Amino acid sequence: MIRHSHDIRVRYADTDKMGVVYNGNYLTYFEIGRTELLRSVGLAYAHLEAHGLLLPVREAHVTYLMPAYYDDVLSIETTYEHVPNVAVITLSYRVLRQDDVLATGYTKHSFVHAHTWRPTRPPRVFVDAVTSGQIV
Amino acid sequence: MIRHSHDIRVRYADTDKMGVVYNGNYLTYFEIGRTELLRSVGLAYAHLEAHGLLLPVREAHVTYLMPAYYDDVLSIETTYEHVPNVAVITLSYRVLRQDDVLATGYTKHSFVHAHTWRPTRPPRVFVDAVTSGQIV
Amino acid sequence: MIRHSHDIRVRYADTDKMGVVYNGNYLTYFEIGRTELLRSVGLAYAHLEAHGLLLPVREAHVTYLMPAYYDDVLSIETTYEHVPNVAVITLSYRVLRQDDVLATGYTKHSFVHAHTWRPTRPPRVFVDAVTSGQIV
Amino acid sequence: MIRHSHDIRVRYADTDKMGVVYNGNYLTYFEIGRTELLRSVGLAYAHLEAHGLLLPVREAHVTYLMPAYYDDVLSIETTYEHVPNVAVITLSYRVLRQDDVLATGYTKHSFVHAHTWRPTRPPRVFVDAVTSGQIV
Repeated sequence: MIRHSHDIRVRYADTDKMGVVYNGNYLTYFEIGRTELLRSVGLAYAHLEAHGLLLPVREAHVTYLMPAYYDDVLSIETTYEHVPNVAVITLSYRVLRQDDVLATGYTKHSFVHAHTWRPTRPPRVFVDAVTSGQIV
Repeated sequence: MIRHSHDIRVRYADTDKMGVVYNGNYLTYFEIGRTELLRSVGLAYAHLEAHGLLLPVREAHVTYLMPAYYDDVLSIETTYEHVPNVAVITLSYRVLRQDDVLATGYTKHSFVHAHTWRPTRPPRVFVDAVTSGQIV
Repeated sequence: MIRHSHDIRVRYADTDKMGVVYNGNYLTYFEIGRTELLRSVGLAYAHLEAHGLLLPVREAHVTYLMPAYYDDVLSIETTYEHVPNVAVITLSYRVLRQDDVLATGYTKHSFVHAHTWRPTRPPRVFVDAVTSGQIV
Repeated sequence: MIRHSHDIRVRYADTDKMGVVYNGNYLTYFEIGRTELLRSVGLAYAHLEAHGLLLPVREAHVTYLMPAYYDDVLSIETTYEHVPNVAVITLSYRVLRQDDVLATGYTKHSFVHAHTWRPTRPPRVFVDAVTSGQIV
């Protein structure tokens, strides 16, 4: 299992008239979380795309527990457990402000070829990174 | 049960470098769907906020089936079934391009007082609108 | 000179904690305005991109006069005057709520080839559309 | 004159189908720049809002020189020169990727009371911060 935590600061643009972070923006926070988790094991997601692969989201879930506010420093904690020979990849997330868990969720993905969007198995470079980079 | 369909056109700003609508923006599409569903039964959500209530999202789920592209005209089909004496409100959604279902999902909400964010029962004006406005 | 007006409704996602439309989102409104102006003279911008051209923004300016609020219906009025043999295209905009002008601005663009981003002259299909489609 | 540089990383959500950062998102980058410039002289903009003041944008200008890409690390360089007894505040910006200047621009603001949006002079806490915090 790989776990990585990355801090961000809430932008004014992220808020809505309710005075809190707009619900849809948590999916952006999750995106940042998985990008940084991959980077933490030596893999830039941009590198995968440069090699003709995409990793679109197939399913996303968010549970909102407490609101996040402008200028808050949030920790996005991302967890990935690699399951061999499975086409669908699942990442799970927690968004925290210090010890408070503000939101939890997960996303499911599958690799596709950029030009055809036809599904493909997770590439070797991905499997190597997430299996050799066992951190927790 | 109330069902309402509302068309939108995909903005350039809604897309990402994958060439499709960014996954987080479907939660904005769902927001438009529930706003227009309420309007269809005579209730402006802005009216509720003007009276000191908010309806924050407690949970959101999206299943992505096919990508949506720039300039597509999408139908956001929103469904609500009122359950008396229940604090949590659930809306479900389908995003379609003509006959193709591109995404499905749901959101759960509860009413809160704007100043305290303390939960409160669905207000009379809401219950009246969604029960008298039975369309389907 | 071509002028076109297109109505949009302010989304919750467009607002920020100030309770008004976030300043950056006016550039999205301008984008909608120029897309619909082109459509009004028979040209889908998506068609230009499908033929290997892009029309990136080179310069943008917004003057904010009055705030726009959630659920407002706004008119985006876009104006284009074609100048022959000029590489840079300028569009100007006004965002109105009924008779109130909320914002004004302009954007400057030049056509580029999608793969190289090398500038190119406005294509024939564009010049034909904006010159034959003289509305005002 | 105060100058402050702050690094951000381009999010996937910031890009559009052109494969580059969407033009409107530079105004979000400018917002981050001025927030961090104020923080660098000891003033949290959130503190001003907590005391009943807002600093809405009156005018914004962006010149786009080169595109920014997903996962780029960008430096937002923000400059402010305080002019005594003037109601309108001007900040200027440069967005760089290493030595390349990708965009330049400025924003103009005036302080208003949060409840009335009536203009007011820059508050003492702001003037003190930007005059004592002379860095360059």
